[in-house]
Amino acid sequence: MIIRVSRDRLDQVLSLLDKSRVPFRTVRIYNEDLIVTWPDAKVDDKAIKAIDPNAVIIEVKAKYQLASNKWRGRTVIDVNGVRVGGSEVVVAAGPCAVESYEQVRETAVAVKEAGARMLRGGAFKPRTSPYSFQGLGVEGLKILRKVGDEVGLPVVSEVMDTRMVGTVAEYVDVLQIGARNAQNFDLLREVGRTGKPVLLKRGLGNTVEEWLQAAEYVMLEGDGNVILCERGIRTFEHSTRFTLDIGAVVVAKQLTHLPICVDPSHPAGKREYVIPMALAAIAAGADMLLVEVHPRPWEALSDAEQQLTFDMFRELMSKAREVARAIGRSL
Amino acid sequence: MIIRVSRDRLDQVLSLLDKSRVPFRTVRIYNEDLIVTWPDAKVDDKAIKAIDPNAVIIEVKAKYQLASNKWRGRTVIDVNGVRVGGSEVVVAAGPCAVESYEQVRETAVAVKEAGARMLRGGAFKPRTSPYSFQGLGVEGLKILRKVGDEVGLPVVSEVMDTRMVGTVAEYVDVLQIGARNAQNFDLLREVGRTGKPVLLKRGLGNTVEEWLQAAEYVMLEGDGNVILCERGIRTFEHSTRFTLDIGAVVVAKQLTHLPICVDPSHPAGKREYVIPMALAAIAAGADMLLVEVHPRPWEALSDAEQQLTFDMFRELMSKAREVARAIGRSL
Amino acid sequence: MIIRVSRDRLDQVLSLLDKSRVPFRTVRIYNEDLIVTWPDAKVDDKAIKAIDPNAVIIEVKAKYQLASNKWRGRTVIDVNGVRVGGSEVVVAAGPCAVESYEQVRETAVAVKEAGARMLRGGAFKPRTSPYSFQGLGVEGLKILRKVGDEVGLPVVSEVMDTRMVGTVAEYVDVLQIGARNAQNFDLLREVGRTGKPVLLKRGLGNTVEEWLQAAEYVMLEGDGNVILCERGIRTFEHSTRFTLDIGAVVVAKQLTHLPICVDPSHPAGKREYVIPMALAAIAAGADMLLVEVHPRPWEALSDAEQQLTFDMFRELMSKAREVARAIGRSL
Amino acid sequence: MIIRVSRDRLDQVLSLLDKSRVPFRTVRIYNEDLIVTWPDAKVDDKAIKAIDPNAVIIEVKAKYQLASNKWRGRTVIDVNGVRVGGSEVVVAAGPCAVESYEQVRETAVAVKEAGARMLRGGAFKPRTSPYSFQGLGVEGLKILRKVGDEVGLPVVSEVMDTRMVGTVAEYVDVLQIGARNAQNFDLLREVGRTGKPVLLKRGLGNTVEEWLQAAEYVMLEGDGNVILCERGIRTFEHSTRFTLDIGAVVVAKQLTHLPICVDPSHPAGKREYVIPMALAAIAAGADMLLVEVHPRPWEALSDAEQQLTFDMFRELMSKAREVARAIGRSL
Repeated sequence: MIIRVSRDRLDQVLSLLDKSRVPFRTVRIYNEDLIVTWPDAKVDDKAIKAIDPNAVIIEVKAKYQLASNKWRGRTVIDVNGVRVGGSEVVVAAGPCAVESYEQVRETAVAVKEAGARMLRGGAFKPRTSPYSFQGLGVEGLKILRKVGDEVGLPVVSEVMDTRMVGTVAEYVDVLQIGARNAQNFDLLREVGRTGKPVLLKRGLGNTVEEWLQAAEYVMLEGDGNVILCERGIRTFEHSTRFTLDIGAVVVAKQLTHLPICVDPSHPAGKREYVIPMALAAIAAGADMLLVEVHPRPWEALSDAEQQLTFDMFRELMSKAREVARAIGRSL
Repeated sequence: MIIRVSRDRLDQVLSLLDKSRVPFRTVRIYNEDLIVTWPDAKVDDKAIKAIDPNAVIIEVKAKYQLASNKWRGRTVIDVNGVRVGGSEVVVAAGPCAVESYEQVRETAVAVKEAGARMLRGGAFKPRTSPYSFQGLGVEGLKILRKVGDEVGLPVVSEVMDTRMVGTVAEYVDVLQIGARNAQNFDLLREVGRTGKPVLLKRGLGNTVEEWLQAAEYVMLEGDGNVILCERGIRTFEHSTRFTLDIGAVVVAKQLTHLPICVDPSHPAGKREYVIPMALAAIAAGADMLLVEVHPRPWEALSDAEQQLTFDMFRELMSKAREVARAIGRSL
Repeated sequence: MIIRVSRDRLDQVLSLLDKSRVPFRTVRIYNEDLIVTWPDAKVDDKAIKAIDPNAVIIEVKAKYQLASNKWRGRTVIDVNGVRVGGSEVVVAAGPCAVESYEQVRETAVAVKEAGARMLRGGAFKPRTSPYSFQGLGVEGLKILRKVGDEVGLPVVSEVMDTRMVGTVAEYVDVLQIGARNAQNFDLLREVGRTGKPVLLKRGLGNTVEEWLQAAEYVMLEGDGNVILCERGIRTFEHSTRFTLDIGAVVVAKQLTHLPICVDPSHPAGKREYVIPMALAAIAAGADMLLVEVHPRPWEALSDAEQQLTFDMFRELMSKAREVARAIGRSL
Repeated sequence: MIIRVSRDRLDQVLSLLDKSRVPFRTVRIYNEDLIVTWPDAKVDDKAIKAIDPNAVIIEVKAKYQLASNKWRGRTVIDVNGVRVGGSEVVVAAGPCAVESYEQVRETAVAVKEAGARMLRGGAFKPRTSPYSFQGLGVEGLKILRKVGDEVGLPVVSEVMDTRMVGTVAEYVDVLQIGARNAQNFDLLREVGRTGKPVLLKRGLGNTVEEWLQAAEYVMLEGDGNVILCERGIRTFEHSTRFTLDIGAVVVAKQLTHLPICVDPSHPAGKREYVIPMALAAIAAGADMLLVEVHPRPWEALSDAEQQLTFDMFRELMSKAREVARAIGRSL
């Protein structure tokens, strides 16, 4: 249940719930105070209405409540002036990993010119192998921030460790949770506490329902600025790096009020597959794209196969614009 | 290897291959005679050139050769005047199962008016349960043929049994191989022998490579009119009935010259997911859609959840037309 | 519902069901005549009891009814004197494909000596690639039959085509349905009509429930001699050829009265993985093993990587015997 | 490469590697100092031998090096006197979650009597839903430690947050990394720094190779006491909660020197499936089992369906003992 009561009746309602042993939590989110009870809790509607006749009690049957669209229309998230979840399809682009100031700067200028609205770049990299390049760390964040400010693009970067949330939050506009931390619940709570926009990737072995429940962890901390990001799941098919689950985008759009992003680069695995996958994502209703672009992908320290060249990114943007228009959106 | 030699040197080349113990097959396909050797066979190019200086010897590294685009540009398949694989995206629509003349007729008129170019309908139904409706059989084929002729739409229907290929081929314009028979190799050979257009669904547990090898079975019988159809694969995600593998469409388009169809109805499982999945398919490059439409889906004897109403189908067509245009195609 | 009525009341009960428009089928199986209604049919128990007070009406909630153990204890299948599903774990062994009389004979002698109770060998081979060895066909069946008779082992071999069921049934003691035909429903019906023992492999993309429904197709034709065979499913993990679903063996044992076989060779993909997978299968409760053995696996025309040498097979049998004893069975 | 040089030549070799720009790391593990170069680094063997003629240079082709068995025989891990990876199959048992002193104490006494050698119990619980019971936290650890000491069983419990590694390490004998943190690389490094035994679960979407690379993260910190734990993967089959990948146990045993544990409780999902899955694990070669047991499972605050009763656990132990003996091990 999600319950809205007038502020002056709040204490009375809370004490009623306490007495009835209903587990609940108060959450300040989207500028209002809500009482969120556990999904299966039995709440005495009449008793609440007796205290506050204007109380609104919304039953959400899903396992996620705040993330559900049963209580709220589409959420538009403002990232330093860039609105995610509105009629514009927003594209965030940039290198897989921050490698140098020059590399990021060159990329940022190119992608902005082509129409990207945000800059992505990994500073802390979750690499399958401990022997792979692990990212520049805080140094990378500084570069990203500097370039973002110079070029005029909000920046998104991943945070992997609860201990680093504060530091990363200082530098970025959007905190990214990677697929491998999609169910790192302490990390989800910690980013939720910052109140900042969060780009929450779906885990490669997670269902849509689990993904939305991960968002619920963030939101229960009072952070409603969650962008859900589909990036491919693990299936038997290995001709692409992961299987882009376009159906998950469609389903999620019908279950949640949160914006949905698609990362076509990771499921593609090869740059020649990225553009059609990106177009499919927009046609399916994605509100945002997260695309890897590198000045010279073949020299990249990570994901060299899947990063787009500037030319390919321009082609993507021009085609994506047409598809967005075809479904009544801009880009 | 795919080898083209002039007709008057054919016998000499074949006898050379025989002597060198190279396993091969001669195939008449796309109006030309080809020699197809086993993929790993070692062929003495010079000896062949000595016999026929104009011989063309094409090495195809893939496990499928005739289905590969290493030897041939995009194939356009003519289905009674409807061209699949050209600049137009072709939509085939109709009920999951043929239930009655009236049902098919009503549907055919409606989908044709909305822009469908082919009529689909199951007469032999591969049902998971022996207790489910198994289709009207030959009676269903007759209805489909009659309606197709009356309304002016080529018809597509599934054949499940090698013994029925001849009969089904009499009634339909396109022989469909269902996902559950995607590796029924005797059936593949048998439909290939008819020379008719074949709509070959990908098996729910098959890789893209296996799907193309299934096409190779058909093509080795001399039938080049194979339309590959992606219809969702089995993965851990169950919020959709199957996982539409949009990446497979992208990959297949880059590997084969054959047209690619997408069936959005089966992966969706619910009609409210069909339209965005169909749009995604077109954006990803699909040449054809296969959509289930029923006058009153809730009364359908099979797949009641996923068949579109006429209104929904009209909405799909109008949106699909826009997306097709956005990527430079018509519909 | 599964309904047993005395023979002299049968017609009356059938006519009652007809009048009540209950869809049903009469099946003669396990030497008794049963009425099997569609699973969701509503049957008037009282009216039936009024006709035959001794009528037994069993409600089976599963989608498969005859395959369910709700109406029948464990079935033991007699294959020419070899009992599958009893306290003995039965091992069928032999080459992937019949290649020559000598190869089969040599193998049969060796595996029998090591304790195998049946001889396997493919004559019709379902190969992913049309360029791979497709088996010796009827010639292979003749070899298999001859060797089986000489050495004194019942033989099992695959049938792929409805048109060949009669022919294959003449030569073999157990008709095998391969994973790729696990939902070839016409073939399932056709083998069911022979009444012979059927080894029914689970499809590589099929759930346990679908596997049991496939068995139901065979059983509804009156053939109760179905051995279910788990042989690995398609998952993201590719370090083994398929993922042996040991849990499916455990689940199936609790749902059906039919014997369960495990083929450890196909999921293993490499011979060095076969033995521990076979032991796991026995520990999990498998009633039968189907193992590929070849005199010189490295020379095999198919599955060369996964066939055991005679030495390895002897090692398997000696270890398997110990594990079988540990769980109170013999081998 | 893994390189062993005598201590007095170490500095010289390191400076050689530095000069040759070979990326490497020195690791003290298993009481010896090793140089571990990046897997694809090119090392001048002769130059090293020139410095230390007794240098041992081992090329490991796998992406994991320290975890590979190319340089080391089976590792036996000593957990307070309990040896994991030796001839004895070790069983760790206990409740999913620590709920109270009484619950843990009762369970510990019962499982010890039945032959368990370690006590498990979750204090920090990674729950899919934020509304589910999240564990007692440090309070739970205290209970576990106290009971472990009283009853005489080493204890294993999960750590989820890098910030809590120190605290959890104070209380437990084995630090468990859960499936959802299987690629939480910062956490892996942090537990590796404690040097304590680590039970590393395989992620539900991770390959065997990724699992071994996760172990490599721990080992590169100098902690060789890693027990790998298979607990089921995500596949399309949902009749069990997860698909126990018995093949992964077999493969891992052939790739690594580390002990392999199997958790049959999570893949089973239902207690009636646990015993045969546990027996299969032992037959496949598992060195350890991790089993959920609860005094009254139906009252459990988490995983109520899959926890064994004491009676079932005793049955498991008695059968497991027989299977262990059958393959030449004790339990």
